[in-house]
Amino acid sequence: MRVVLNGRLACQGADLLRARFGDRLEVLEVADGDRSAAAQDRLARAGALITLGFDETMPPLPALRLIQLPVAGLDQVRLDLVPAGCPVCNVFEHEIGISEYVLAAMLQITLDLGARSARFKAGSWAESPLQGGPARRELAGQTVGCIGYGHIGRAVAARARGFGMRIMAIAASGRAGEPAPDWVGGPAALGEVLAAADFVLIACPLSERTHGLIGAAALDRMKPDAVLINVARGAIVDEPALFKALRARRIGGAVLDTWYRYPSAAEPAVPPAHLPFHELDNVIMTPHCSGWTEGLMPRRFALIADNLERLQSGRPLLNQVHPQPG
Amino acid sequence: MRVVLNGRLACQGADLLRARFGDRLEVLEVADGDRSAAAQDRLARAGALITLGFDETMPPLPALRLIQLPVAGLDQVRLDLVPAGCPVCNVFEHEIGISEYVLAAMLQITLDLGARSARFKAGSWAESPLQGGPARRELAGQTVGCIGYGHIGRAVAARARGFGMRIMAIAASGRAGEPAPDWVGGPAALGEVLAAADFVLIACPLSERTHGLIGAAALDRMKPDAVLINVARGAIVDEPALFKALRARRIGGAVLDTWYRYPSAAEPAVPPAHLPFHELDNVIMTPHCSGWTEGLMPRRFALIADNLERLQSGRPLLNQVHPQPG
Repeated sequence: MRVVLNGRLACQGADLLRARFGDRLEVLEVADGDRSAAAQDRLARAGALITLGFDETMPPLPALRLIQLPVAGLDQVRLDLVPAGCPVCNVFEHEIGISEYVLAAMLQITLDLGARSARFKAGSWAESPLQGGPARRELAGQTVGCIGYGHIGRAVAARARGFGMRIMAIAASGRAGEPAPDWVGGPAALGEVLAAADFVLIACPLSERTHGLIGAAALDRMKPDAVLINVARGAIVDEPALFKALRARRIGGAVLDTWYRYPSAAEPAVPPAHLPFHELDNVIMTPHCSGWTEGLMPRRFALIADNLERLQSGRPLLNQVHPQPG
Repeated sequence: MRVVLNGRLACQGADLLRARFGDRLEVLEVADGDRSAAAQDRLARAGALITLGFDETMPPLPALRLIQLPVAGLDQVRLDLVPAGCPVCNVFEHEIGISEYVLAAMLQITLDLGARSARFKAGSWAESPLQGGPARRELAGQTVGCIGYGHIGRAVAARARGFGMRIMAIAASGRAGEPAPDWVGGPAALGEVLAAADFVLIACPLSERTHGLIGAAALDRMKPDAVLINVARGAIVDEPALFKALRARRIGGAVLDTWYRYPSAAEPAVPPAHLPFHELDNVIMTPHCSGWTEGLMPRRFALIADNLERLQSGRPLLNQVHPQPG
């Protein structure tokens, strides 16, 4: 079988796949944005395509039997363009890194260890309790509201539970998996979670139902010192409404890892938003790296390799998201 | 009964005690280092003394029935000077704040969210996985070695467990309380923990047995990328040996909250060590504030007030550490 790795992220698995399959698999690579005839030819011969996106720039793929995403999100895949009957599978495995990031973000808000260390290194004992330094908030007793309770929400809950935090969850089904949150509701109960949470965690997929889900009205429901954490997709939170709430200090702050604009070959240094979030001191922001850990790609490509084995031997695929397996 | 609060830390409980006891208790305050005749007179009349330290500067205290520490550590109490039969009690309650600090420290080492945010705010997408940014380590799968498995060690373990970390513990008794660590040994097994841990957490009391426990030989046992975290007492770790190991990059780094020198009235801005730890880029350092949270003093003074009630009504005291209750 011929596997084509399309784009930088997919190409990171090349060595893993070659090591595992040897001669049993032909692994071809296409660089990000490569529109050359050679690249088109490689794509066109794919039996399995490992790719972040699938759109109208794809050539016809007559041999295609699997579209395998190396990520969780389907938002760059035009499902209407996927050849009829061709399965699309995704991977998770990022919930370890993302949940570590989310707890780090909460502790950054309460403790800010890096800056605290810099101040002490400069010679000031002023933050010592013996000199009347201010006491900080504890995570213990605070409430995290998980908007979405899939892999990420549950991994955050497993960690936040150890800290004695209260977990509220909005689940699409209205029912929650393990670990059981202290409170769970369906999408109609969003307002209750927004009003109660000290940390509002956006951890749901981007879809027509969640696009712009957190707008001005939702932000107004949040407590004035609550912090929004978005590790899902930028577009779930309305950009102008969020910027306005932060600038006016209507909410306590935001930790943003997912964005409104991303770099492209044409604009490699594009700002991550149309509005200047980087000027706000109540914003912590990172370039979509919350799940980017050393363990991620080995776990993902182990699963992708399993799927290629399954494809070859005709067994059911893992994590098939399209067409919905019956 | 007359209660004397000696020093700034103890005096922070004045309002709580007055609110709870009203006229039933006379609350007197003595400022840090106040050696005036008025201060000596107030101390001398104490029925209960709430104090961080007890040494030869104390006047005779003929009415004294309780020495109550507002902290856990007894190292500033000269037990040989405590009037015969006078109980000494301590408090904990800091394990929530300290364990949050320890997890924050581990996440600071792997993620360094504050600096990461500053770099992205400056406009660079270089840490994005889409641009080939470096993957960071996960806490999942790493080993924390708790040297001491009391209130603090167990609170750290409860949190680290949620992250999928492995917990090794050295307990004075060789047996561990809840949560059960993955591995436990007595003091003789210290070397095994030092050799296996990614994070070595100092969380034992300072005593004759632990003074200088971590010296050059112990540091040599640590893995070259392991990080030492000291939230217990500075003197448990030999200062020159630690400095040398850090400067030579013999270990990965250190997170230090407890120190070799502390400010005094005479030297309010004394450096925290004799050697320049603040010049080392592999050191994170804070002024003994790891447990200093908003929840701490209310929890501690609620317990102290309980003890004053117990003293008045002749019931057994909480947390008596001297004389060893038989």
